[in-house]
Amino acid sequence: MMKDVFFMEKALDLALKGSGRTSPNPLVGAVVVRDGRIVGEGWHAAYGGPHAEVHALRQAGSAAAGATIYVTLEPCNHFGKTPPCTQAILDAEVGRVVIAMKDPNPKAAGGMDRLRSAGVIVDTGICEDQARKLNAPFIKKMETGLPWVVLKCAMTLDGRVATRSGDSKWVTGAESREWCHRHLRQRLDAILVGSATVRADDPSLTCRLPEGSGRDPVRIVLASKLDVDTKARVLCQKSDSATFLLCAEGLPASRKQPFLEMGVRVLETPSDKDGRLNFKAMMPLLAEQGIQSLLIEGGGRVAASALKSGIVDKAVFFYAPKILGGDGIPVMDGPGPERMDQCMFLADMAVFPCGGDIRVEGYPLVPSLA
Amino acid sequence: MMKDVFFMEKALDLALKGSGRTSPNPLVGAVVVRDGRIVGEGWHAAYGGPHAEVHALRQAGSAAAGATIYVTLEPCNHFGKTPPCTQAILDAEVGRVVIAMKDPNPKAAGGMDRLRSAGVIVDTGICEDQARKLNAPFIKKMETGLPWVVLKCAMTLDGRVATRSGDSKWVTGAESREWCHRHLRQRLDAILVGSATVRADDPSLTCRLPEGSGRDPVRIVLASKLDVDTKARVLCQKSDSATFLLCAEGLPASRKQPFLEMGVRVLETPSDKDGRLNFKAMMPLLAEQGIQSLLIEGGGRVAASALKSGIVDKAVFFYAPKILGGDGIPVMDGPGPERMDQCMFLADMAVFPCGGDIRVEGYPLVPSLA
Repeated sequence: MMKDVFFMEKALDLALKGSGRTSPNPLVGAVVVRDGRIVGEGWHAAYGGPHAEVHALRQAGSAAAGATIYVTLEPCNHFGKTPPCTQAILDAEVGRVVIAMKDPNPKAAGGMDRLRSAGVIVDTGICEDQARKLNAPFIKKMETGLPWVVLKCAMTLDGRVATRSGDSKWVTGAESREWCHRHLRQRLDAILVGSATVRADDPSLTCRLPEGSGRDPVRIVLASKLDVDTKARVLCQKSDSATFLLCAEGLPASRKQPFLEMGVRVLETPSDKDGRLNFKAMMPLLAEQGIQSLLIEGGGRVAASALKSGIVDKAVFFYAPKILGGDGIPVMDGPGPERMDQCMFLADMAVFPCGGDIRVEGYPLVPSLA
Repeated sequence: MMKDVFFMEKALDLALKGSGRTSPNPLVGAVVVRDGRIVGEGWHAAYGGPHAEVHALRQAGSAAAGATIYVTLEPCNHFGKTPPCTQAILDAEVGRVVIAMKDPNPKAAGGMDRLRSAGVIVDTGICEDQARKLNAPFIKKMETGLPWVVLKCAMTLDGRVATRSGDSKWVTGAESREWCHRHLRQRLDAILVGSATVRADDPSLTCRLPEGSGRDPVRIVLASKLDVDTKARVLCQKSDSATFLLCAEGLPASRKQPFLEMGVRVLETPSDKDGRLNFKAMMPLLAEQGIQSLLIEGGGRVAASALKSGIVDKAVFFYAPKILGGDGIPVMDGPGPERMDQCMFLADMAVFPCGGDIRVEGYPLVPSLA
């Protein structure tokens, strides 16, 4: 059992190497072990490419016969972009298959049964929690059809994201900002901000890393009335990924035209009574566009509305060792509850040091929706 | 050396047992070690009582001859409430004295020289950082004459201390609240809030612990115009410790009379141009009243003003796993800076889990005062 955990953790590490490149496929890693030694390693590196098991079995070659393969997700049993991995495992005459979690994709499932009925020993559930966290976006899409949503905010210890004049450069340190590019912008399919943030900060919303450009997420700006300057950086990026403007329904075509001509995609979205775009209604539209995971970066109105709508799966809050001492721009903006026991809760809160800052992660629960 | 650290840490643990009872004396612990075994333990248990060394030597009895004594503070060399500890050490024929830090009190110092000239081996500086932290209030008083000030705030992850209606029961969990009573209210000489907090929450400001009452701090309310109800709980406590009202200069005696008749002490304090009491001017007044350490518990105006005045030595911020999502009462209230690089900084920030909450501690730096 201890050995199984050791090798499965290795496979989980390998799976991470595909981060940001496999969507809508899951991240998968695999190791082939013979006589206690790793003889093959593989991971799913990019959508459309070979699966982790195939890479690992190729590297193992004839040593795979009678060996054990550790896979972070149940091997697929269907012809998709590539042939079924169950067949590759049987062809290689692997003796035992250890699986972290079942495949939630009904089309691909059935791999375990196929392997067992062919006489292979199959064990499951090793490091299942870690495997589920690794592929939270994929699992959510399979179970609900909706994108996995992460809300990221960066603030002072007194909960401010900018001074009263709007200065926000910088709240957190370089390490935290790099962490966000590497672990959020590069890994999640899309990034979303409000038009107020575009007007105030003119962000590019690309993924920039010290070693060079990362993989850019799809850039999404909420602009109910399309009140965004066509010269805004977010609309003018040289980037492999698209830019979306989400606006209210029924705007005249002439308002959309300048953006469409720039190659920006304009999507109409249902609004609430107060004229603000409805987050809940937005999620199926984004899923239709192939967005399986979404990073929301604020500002305060967008962050608070998204949270209250119940669409946020995970919150990542950075706190810099700074105190503004009053009257800056608060991290959350909008109506709050009357009583303290009506506020939102962050389940499984965990804290990590991040350079000179701290990072708090957890899973928001909205009591009014419970 | 490793052994020295081991026994000095034991002495530091013992010193803590006097928490809240020794002021204006420091916390001190001592262990007597012979042949690698502890043969005597002692701590300074209460102001006016015997010093740590005397307790430890009494317990060791004749075993102290030729032994080593570990003391967290240089043994005193003067007749205060008790005879000099140096004499007790020499009488017991201790062979070696290990000291964490020198005594910053000029009246009591000279102990090391006295011991050395009598032929005792003396080593210093073992666990000095820990010893200085243990007695930060005492050291600050000796070095500056002013009280050591801790600011404590308890907030949601979005920096709010109450809902828009003022509901603040409770932000943090039971463990955090108990921690504050045990480690702050019980240990520090006094606790301070503004009159707005008294009107809003009507707190008692006593030290309440699950095992029974702790030692109450002196209760201090800032009320520039004495606009506090005489029925406020903080003024009517059955408690061994006093209640102070701090008000502006020049109020008529008739305004003070009802409070004085209740046994409340009323102290006049210089005001700023805006009519608010001046924190910097307040500190020497409190020191004159024998207050060596002060806990500030808010609200937002008081917390922000105290921080900006530069009097806060240490900040203790609690974050509950809760998100209000906008429009609650912010933890800091008042004018903030124009630029982010002008904000206050929390040096040596450290994070601790506390029940379901997190506790952030650090040492505020105010750039405008640098």
